[in-house]
Amino acid sequence: MGQNLVRNLQNHGYSVVVYNRTGEKTRKFVEKHPEFLAEYSLEKFVSQLNQPRRIFLMVTAGTPVDATLISLTGLLSSGDVVIDGGNSFFKDTERRCTDMGRQGIYFLGVGVSGGEEGALKGPCVMVGGPREGYELVREMLGRVAAQVDGPCREYLGPRGAGHYVKMVHNGIEYAIIQIIAEAYDLLTRGAGLNLKQARNVFKEWNEGELGSFLMEIAVEVLGKIDPTTKHPLVSLILDQAQQKGTGKWTSQNAMDLGIPTPTIDAAVSARNLSGLKEERMKAAEIFKPLRKPHQISVPGNFTERLEGAVRASISMSYAQGFHLMRKASNEYEYMIPLADVARIWRGGCIIRARMLDPIRHAFEINGQLPNLMMDQTFALVLAGLENRWRESVKTAKNAGLPIPAIGASLDYYDGYRNERLPANLIQILRDRFGAHGYERLDKPGQFHSNWP
Amino acid sequence: MGQNLVRNLQNHGYSVVVYNRTGEKTRKFVEKHPEFLAEYSLEKFVSQLNQPRRIFLMVTAGTPVDATLISLTGLLSSGDVVIDGGNSFFKDTERRCTDMGRQGIYFLGVGVSGGEEGALKGPCVMVGGPREGYELVREMLGRVAAQVDGPCREYLGPRGAGHYVKMVHNGIEYAIIQIIAEAYDLLTRGAGLNLKQARNVFKEWNEGELGSFLMEIAVEVLGKIDPTTKHPLVSLILDQAQQKGTGKWTSQNAMDLGIPTPTIDAAVSARNLSGLKEERMKAAEIFKPLRKPHQISVPGNFTERLEGAVRASISMSYAQGFHLMRKASNEYEYMIPLADVARIWRGGCIIRARMLDPIRHAFEINGQLPNLMMDQTFALVLAGLENRWRESVKTAKNAGLPIPAIGASLDYYDGYRNERLPANLIQILRDRFGAHGYERLDKPGQFHSNWP
Repeated sequence: MGQNLVRNLQNHGYSVVVYNRTGEKTRKFVEKHPEFLAEYSLEKFVSQLNQPRRIFLMVTAGTPVDATLISLTGLLSSGDVVIDGGNSFFKDTERRCTDMGRQGIYFLGVGVSGGEEGALKGPCVMVGGPREGYELVREMLGRVAAQVDGPCREYLGPRGAGHYVKMVHNGIEYAIIQIIAEAYDLLTRGAGLNLKQARNVFKEWNEGELGSFLMEIAVEVLGKIDPTTKHPLVSLILDQAQQKGTGKWTSQNAMDLGIPTPTIDAAVSARNLSGLKEERMKAAEIFKPLRKPHQISVPGNFTERLEGAVRASISMSYAQGFHLMRKASNEYEYMIPLADVARIWRGGCIIRARMLDPIRHAFEINGQLPNLMMDQTFALVLAGLENRWRESVKTAKNAGLPIPAIGASLDYYDGYRNERLPANLIQILRDRFGAHGYERLDKPGQFHSNWP
Repeated sequence: MGQNLVRNLQNHGYSVVVYNRTGEKTRKFVEKHPEFLAEYSLEKFVSQLNQPRRIFLMVTAGTPVDATLISLTGLLSSGDVVIDGGNSFFKDTERRCTDMGRQGIYFLGVGVSGGEEGALKGPCVMVGGPREGYELVREMLGRVAAQVDGPCREYLGPRGAGHYVKMVHNGIEYAIIQIIAEAYDLLTRGAGLNLKQARNVFKEWNEGELGSFLMEIAVEVLGKIDPTTKHPLVSLILDQAQQKGTGKWTSQNAMDLGIPTPTIDAAVSARNLSGLKEERMKAAEIFKPLRKPHQISVPGNFTERLEGAVRASISMSYAQGFHLMRKASNEYEYMIPLADVARIWRGGCIIRARMLDPIRHAFEINGQLPNLMMDQTFALVLAGLENRWRESVKTAKNAGLPIPAIGASLDYYDGYRNERLPANLIQILRDRFGAHGYERLDKPGQFHSNWP
């Protein structure tokens, strides 16, 4: 991504000096792109830059970022800007902002989404850190960013705000990808469509309300033929999904903040379950002889129903992500402008989608909207999709196919719009066995009963 | 719990010196229980104990434990034993074991489950820490513990092993409580039973395979009448569940270790969702006029079906918890004896249940069992429950009632016993947008395609 990003910067008229810890990589890059000025020591690299320097780190998150910052210590001058464009954990970014700030350096934690292609053609750029530092790179970041009604680049708050929003972006991404994978499973193994038919369904969906980058590339990858075997590539790929941790962080942080994000959680655990390929193969051997194979009865309008389920479930993923950002915004005093988040996510990033237009609209009407489900337009749409959603879940459960994300989304919907949940039984049980106390509906205060 | 635990120790012939940071609490306690020797300074307290001293801390997890350990520094002698019987985070226990070990003190992280009642009458005692320290308190802990075919007390491994197992115990507890709450909701709001009828269903379940402490006290609390209003107490309690964090830790750690625990995750997020009472009330107002009320059609054999769903879902909670402990056992080099865990959980603790007999049996046959679902007996039972489980989920989804834990459990079952999952689509998408690479079914190695 780093290489594509510097090419993007150069394409927009910025003169870039490139440096990589591994000189060989730098050499290869400038062989291909001789228009770049390259340096092979950090000292020389820094000395080539005009003050205030603008340094864009594209380094693996974690200790490599700290190591680079340590190497830079002493080389920089007060007022320089260092941008961390990787997927750093937001709490690391908080710490680095403070540390670098003490040295007079503006440290910006910037979420950059768009993958390889986005980095070259225009990513979505989510900026966090000191605002004074932002002002020094605002125009530059705006030019390299994707453009949808203006640049998909915004200042989202102090310290870790940018990386926080990027983390939640990735959590939502996990959820949406899982939902698409479940739909693919239901279409092929459930409804018995072949790959070409399933691809056509996705193509049709992509032209409607589900229009999005992920649906678009799902159509693309389902059409990809393996050059060696001439088989569809997807059918040759191991069903064991990897992850780099940002989805996991989202779920873990949501649990810390007490915000339910069950669709994202389900996507994380579904990836972990997929990773247990060997165990699953053994379990399948044990269970196959014990179970009657399912009589899958798929109704004629199944794909239309499923489209509703997918749309509603993806809405829940966004609802949970925005809910979490609202909470984090208070908790960490980020003051994240949620409408702006929706606005810049419409271009460049992996989860860019038609659906972000009404989401942006919802937060423009009410920047403090507690949850997307509270927006009248969204509520109407969801209520309209409800039956199709429910029917799809039932079909999947008849077929014995796992739909952890679509299922968790419907349960979230059924929970959030419900003024009563059976948590009163949980409270009374906790008081019975642990003397934890309870609150009452009929009077305020904390109560405890004598048991038994 | 501390007070009940010292009474338990005294009842078993141990002479106990009591101390509390708040002298007033100690005074009140010895007024009621004059048979105890009390001290009002830590120095005097420590000096009253014979060497090697055996000190049982019952202090709120977190900084209070560290503060107490600091206060004890200098007062103890090499070879003394300090037991932390609270719900400390296992990584804190690891650190404290090391720190105290340097001073020659045996620090034991001991999970004590059983609530107030268990502490007095016999809790389940899960010991972790240096084995030499354990030997010095082994008999004492065995005597105060619950007795089911011997004491429900076991050495589970070095350092944080005891608190780790206690954490997972609590994660499973969250899951089971949530499943019971969902069943209560389905019986009352779903099938329209009144409280008395629902209670009778639970009573009947408790006499069968679902026999357990939690089902037993569910029967009890559903019968509790509020003395002031004469209404059933449960119907007066706010449906907003609290938590102290151990369930959350289980889910967060499972995500770190890459083990799917979706039922526990769902229980954690369901508590968080219940906490949003005000938002839920507002959302209900918005959605009620938009939706047709559900025509809940409950089949005649609904309670029998639901019993199957509850049993299967609770099995999945145990399966996930034991799976996680197996992984943690390797990851942290705890060597947790899983059959022993199942054995001691049969008495004293909150999740004690008839179902732990076959679980113990499964791990006695194979201590390295990857997952309870791989045990032939369990597999047979689950396959037999499958239809009732599926039908219950469908009924709930028809009724519009949230069943996050029961639903997640069925999806886990459908995922784990499935040799193919649609994660191949996830992998190919990740390669398409992020050049993350993929593995193939037909040949080993890491691959990457040129896109588009």
